[in-house]
Amino acid sequence: MRSMYWEDGRLYILDQVRLPLEVEYIVCQDYQDVAGAISQMKVRGAPAIGAAAAYGMALGASTVNTGSRDVFLEELEKIGRELIGTRPTAVNLQWAVNRVLDRVRAATDKEIAALKELVLQEADTIFLEDIASNQKMGAYGESLVPDGARILTHCNAGALATAGFGTALGVIRAAHQKGKKVHVYAGETRPFMQGTRLTTWELMSDGIPVTLLADSMAGYLMAKGGVDLVIVGADRIAGNGDVANKIGTYSLAVLAKSHQIPFYVAAPLSTVDFSLLSGDDIPIEERAAEELTHFRGKRIAPEGVDVWNPAFDVTPHRFIDAIITDAGVVRPPYLDNLKQVAAKED
Amino acid sequence: MRSMYWEDGRLYILDQVRLPLEVEYIVCQDYQDVAGAISQMKVRGAPAIGAAAAYGMALGASTVNTGSRDVFLEELEKIGRELIGTRPTAVNLQWAVNRVLDRVRAATDKEIAALKELVLQEADTIFLEDIASNQKMGAYGESLVPDGARILTHCNAGALATAGFGTALGVIRAAHQKGKKVHVYAGETRPFMQGTRLTTWELMSDGIPVTLLADSMAGYLMAKGGVDLVIVGADRIAGNGDVANKIGTYSLAVLAKSHQIPFYVAAPLSTVDFSLLSGDDIPIEERAAEELTHFRGKRIAPEGVDVWNPAFDVTPHRFIDAIITDAGVVRPPYLDNLKQVAAKED
Repeated sequence: MRSMYWEDGRLYILDQVRLPLEVEYIVCQDYQDVAGAISQMKVRGAPAIGAAAAYGMALGASTVNTGSRDVFLEELEKIGRELIGTRPTAVNLQWAVNRVLDRVRAATDKEIAALKELVLQEADTIFLEDIASNQKMGAYGESLVPDGARILTHCNAGALATAGFGTALGVIRAAHQKGKKVHVYAGETRPFMQGTRLTTWELMSDGIPVTLLADSMAGYLMAKGGVDLVIVGADRIAGNGDVANKIGTYSLAVLAKSHQIPFYVAAPLSTVDFSLLSGDDIPIEERAAEELTHFRGKRIAPEGVDVWNPAFDVTPHRFIDAIITDAGVVRPPYLDNLKQVAAKED
Repeated sequence: MRSMYWEDGRLYILDQVRLPLEVEYIVCQDYQDVAGAISQMKVRGAPAIGAAAAYGMALGASTVNTGSRDVFLEELEKIGRELIGTRPTAVNLQWAVNRVLDRVRAATDKEIAALKELVLQEADTIFLEDIASNQKMGAYGESLVPDGARILTHCNAGALATAGFGTALGVIRAAHQKGKKVHVYAGETRPFMQGTRLTTWELMSDGIPVTLLADSMAGYLMAKGGVDLVIVGADRIAGNGDVANKIGTYSLAVLAKSHQIPFYVAAPLSTVDFSLLSGDDIPIEERAAEELTHFRGKRIAPEGVDVWNPAFDVTPHRFIDAIITDAGVVRPPYLDNLKQVAAKED
């Protein structure tokens, strides 16, 4: 399956709201289509929205009608801000947009037409690099997965959440491809049901055994000795290794620690925000009350009920046994060791 | 609101599957109607299904057509087994059925007609005693609720889960009635949504401030300092204080301990099963996969996905700071102290 692809000047995004009942691609003709798809979570997952936003920049660039480099850059920056504004927590969104902008800024010798071409090239590069980086994470991370492992995951950190292959599910996929027997427990991931709808579907498509359970069942499964390790993705990682990820991740990390079960995070270095010293500084998106009061447009809760609906939480680094990156498996102390692998990559 | 009432030889049960959108009572004309209502969770909550089963015995007794005491008792025992078989975890079900049977067995001097009357009397007594016992729990338990407390609860342990007033929500209700300012956080309680549908509705009806959140958000709320105490109900308590309650309770208990937040269980002594030495011996009901793969009859998960759907979990006594009973607040060591309050009651 492909979470998105570029063809004939358009971006095709697999509509993840309709999965698994319908497999349908939406066509994005301009950057507003991409912004809409991101804010409505038709495309979701930090690396995937990064790649989608980069293609959104390409779509936006193509419509800027000017002969001036300055105006072009200004317009592109405006488009970038709009794309970044769609979802505040995942850092990959701004990382991808800024990478495109930096590329344009650096190309001081190019005409507008060539700059437009450059933006698309950079989007393609981000897209392809993400797949490669997921495969590297898989290769590094699968060493942490014992044969026969029963693995708990949360949300969807798979091919659907990335340009391809996946972060947390990429590690599981790599272990499976190496011939290891694995069994995945997928938390349904309220309220958006990424576990129910996406992770089960993605793993079943690959023939990887998976069992669906409600998020609140994970602790009991651990207590019964049913979980050997936990792997999740990340939306943003602070310099000290604190991880923002889908709401519910923190609870799983506390439960894993309490049951002495290894807790791993898989994310490319592009997810690390070295400008933030700790997870306290990561902005946490709160989404509409309707995600909890309604189901598929139908009310289930009393009218007027107060709701708290944070889309992410922050897991302090002390709960994380290792961060599996595309530059290797990083262990604590993260402040030093994340910088070290990042420096090696540059 | 009344979770059920008896009128003109019929039991009226508030249909909790339809709440909060429709407030409708179903009419039970025979014990099979009651058994169906329990197994379909139209009436749920350990004390409520106990009271409903007692009335089910009365309905069943009324239809037994015999002049023989032995045959009458035999038939009644059969009906009791059927009612008990509807849900395995809550001990109140068998407690209520056995109480009715014991009453009949003890009445060696009575004619069949009088025995039938006796069964209904005993059901009424169980019903009224449950309300009284909840009010006692409220009076004892509210001392544990500080003014201004932000209280997390799970599932619905309210008036709806009992004959009236509630266990965990009874304690909150009592604190509120005493003029204490409280704010309740209600976990939605997947998959059956008792928090979303019932607890919010019940508390809003009483004007007690309540905020709805997904079960997976509770840990993050604790980490942010948003929870002062946790109170939940119980479906069965082993002699050592281990508590079986709605799935997700165990995770909350571990999280509360990890954040040094007091964790209380409110339940009448009838919920304590002294025949069990530990929670390991409590049978845990697993319910249909459809509760997770479908929503209101519509499929949301891929076809054929494997599902784990335990309806309850067991929280070991070491996570529980106190058990609020109708005979007083019991602190560890529970093995001794539960027996002591029970002996005082007898």
